[in-house]
Amino acid sequence: MKKRIVLTGDRPTGPLHLGHYVGSLKNRLVLQKEASQFVMIADVQALTDNYENPQKVRENVVEVALDYLAVGIDPNQTTIFIQSLIPALFELTLYYLNLVTWNRLKHNPTVKQEIQQKGFGESVPAGFMVYPISQAADITAFKANLVPVGEDQRPMVEQTNEIVRRFNQVYKTDVLVECEAMIPKIARLPGIDGKAKMSKSLNNAIFLSDPADVVAKKVKGMYTDPTHLRVEDPGKVEGNPVFDYLDAFDTDLAGLEEMKAHYQRGGLGDSVVKKRLLDVLQAVLEPIRSRREALARDPEAILTMLQKGSEAANQVAQATLLEVRRAMCLNY
Amino acid sequence: MKKRIVLTGDRPTGPLHLGHYVGSLKNRLVLQKEASQFVMIADVQALTDNYENPQKVRENVVEVALDYLAVGIDPNQTTIFIQSLIPALFELTLYYLNLVTWNRLKHNPTVKQEIQQKGFGESVPAGFMVYPISQAADITAFKANLVPVGEDQRPMVEQTNEIVRRFNQVYKTDVLVECEAMIPKIARLPGIDGKAKMSKSLNNAIFLSDPADVVAKKVKGMYTDPTHLRVEDPGKVEGNPVFDYLDAFDTDLAGLEEMKAHYQRGGLGDSVVKKRLLDVLQAVLEPIRSRREALARDPEAILTMLQKGSEAANQVAQATLLEVRRAMCLNY
Repeated sequence: MKKRIVLTGDRPTGPLHLGHYVGSLKNRLVLQKEASQFVMIADVQALTDNYENPQKVRENVVEVALDYLAVGIDPNQTTIFIQSLIPALFELTLYYLNLVTWNRLKHNPTVKQEIQQKGFGESVPAGFMVYPISQAADITAFKANLVPVGEDQRPMVEQTNEIVRRFNQVYKTDVLVECEAMIPKIARLPGIDGKAKMSKSLNNAIFLSDPADVVAKKVKGMYTDPTHLRVEDPGKVEGNPVFDYLDAFDTDLAGLEEMKAHYQRGGLGDSVVKKRLLDVLQAVLEPIRSRREALARDPEAILTMLQKGSEAANQVAQATLLEVRRAMCLNY
Repeated sequence: MKKRIVLTGDRPTGPLHLGHYVGSLKNRLVLQKEASQFVMIADVQALTDNYENPQKVRENVVEVALDYLAVGIDPNQTTIFIQSLIPALFELTLYYLNLVTWNRLKHNPTVKQEIQQKGFGESVPAGFMVYPISQAADITAFKANLVPVGEDQRPMVEQTNEIVRRFNQVYKTDVLVECEAMIPKIARLPGIDGKAKMSKSLNNAIFLSDPADVVAKKVKGMYTDPTHLRVEDPGKVEGNPVFDYLDAFDTDLAGLEEMKAHYQRGGLGDSVVKKRLLDVLQAVLEPIRSRREALARDPEAILTMLQKGSEAANQVAQATLLEVRRAMCLNY
C-alpha cells in the first residue's frame, strides 16, 4: 500500500474555532498516527489578502500553533511548519506559473467566488489570483497524496493535479505526485447565528481559546428555531445550530435522539437544550483551554517548535526542488 | 554622490549578437569600472516563454557567459550570476505580487506587445504575465538605482518603481530603492535584412561567436538601398543597414563621412562599402572570437565562475530579503 503523505494547514488570520475543530483538527489527530502529516501555517497565503496587515498575520502564527498543540497535534508525530520559512515553495510556484494559462487562473471557481465575497472587483491583488498555484507548490513539495479540504476547495486539488500532469509530461519525468482530496464526512459547522459557515469575519464563532464564561454567553445567545416561541410548541431540529453542534459533539447518542424527539413534539425549552450543549462543549473545550493557557506562558518555546518543524519541512521540500530543477535542466 | 548600482542582464535564449554588443555590452565595459555592476543571466525569465525547451535555456546560459567574458566583462569587476541560483528573487516576486493588481499586470504595455508578437492570445502562460514583477524583484534585490534598458522596456522600470513606493508605504519602511532607466544613446541596430531589430528569431543577426567566413557571408548578403542598382546611381544612406553598422563601429569618422557623400552622389558600389564594413567588423570581432574559442575549451571553468558570481549575488539578495522580511513582520 502506498504510504499516505498528508499536507494540510491553516491561514493565520485568527485563532481557530469549533468549525476548525470539527472540520479538520480532529481528523489530524487521527491522521498523525496513520500517515506522514505536514501541517502548514500558511502565512504567505494569508498575506495575499492581508498584505496591509502583516502584524495580524504574525501574531496569529503563534495563536494557531497554540491551538494545534492544545488540541493534541503532536510535533513529534506531525511536522508543523511556517510556509514563509520554506524557500522551495516560492520557487516551485514560479515554475508552475509557466504551466498554467492566465485564462485558467482567471476561471478558478473557488477564487472567483472569493473575489466576489471579498469585494475585490478589478483591483484584486495579483498575488491573490496566484494563490492556487502557490497551493500546488505546497502540496507537491511534500509529495502529499492526501489533502484534507472542504468541498469548496476541491477545484484547488484539481488545479494541483493538472500542474502535476503537465509538469511530468513537459519535463518527461515522474517527480511530481498527484494527490487526492479528502472531504470530511461531517458537514460544515454553522455559526452561532445559524449562518451556514462559522467564521471569525462573520463574528459567529466559538473559539478554542474562548474563556468558559464567553462560551457560556455565546451558547446562551445562539440562534435556534425562530418559530419555537413557547416551551410547549413543537420545535425544528433541522437548521437549528444548537442541534447541529450536539450532533457534532455529544457522544451520548441515545440521549441526543430522545432530546430531539422531545423538542420536535413540544415541551422542551431552548434553554434546556442549550444547557446540555454547554456542558458537552465545556467538556471538550476545558482540557484544550487549560493546555493552551499553560503553553501560552512560553511563546519562545512555540517559536522554537515551529523553527524545528520548519527545518524538517525545509529538508523535504529542498529534496523535491532538487529533483524538479534536475528535470528542468536547472541543476548547475 | 550616491553610489551607482547597476542591474542588467540577458535572457539565455541564444548567443549574443552585434545588436547586444552595441546596445548593452559596450556600455557594461564602461560601467564595470564606474559602478557596482550585477549582470544576470535570466534563465528563470527565459523559461516563462521557453518552458517547454529547458535544454535550450541551459545551453545558452554557458553561451551567454562565454560572450560576456569574450567581450571583456570582467568577473572581478562585475558580478555575473544565474537568476535561478538566487532564491530571494522568487520570494520577493511573490511578495510584490500582492502589491500589484491583476488589472495592472494585464495592462503592462511591453507585455501586451510581446503577447501579440509571440501569438500567445488567451493561452499566455501566467508566468509570462508575471515576469515584470519578477524583474522588479531582480532590480530591488540588489538595490540597483541604474537599469540600462531599451526604450521599449521603460514601462518595466516604471512598474518596478511603483512597487518600490507601494512597498515602502504599506510596510512603513525605506528598504527598497527606486531606480532610473538608462536608455542607450545609439538607436537599436537593425538586422542584416534591414528590419528594425536584429534578433536570433528573425534570423537576421551577426553573432559574436560567428566564424570569420560566416560574418563575411552575412555582410556580403546584407540589405542595402534597393534603388541603388548600378554603381553610378546615387544611393541612400538612411535606412541602409550597412551604413548604420559603419556608424556604430567605424572609428575613422572622416573616412566614413567621405564614403557616405560618395555613395550619395553615385559612383560607389555596395561591394566597396561592404568590404569596408567587413574589415571594421572583423577588427572588432576577431579578438572577441579568439578569446571566446579559448574560453570555450574549459566549460567547467565557466560554470565555476558563474557559481562564484551567484554566491556573491546571493549574499547581497539575501541581505535585502532579510530587511524585506523584517518590514513584513516575517522575521521568525
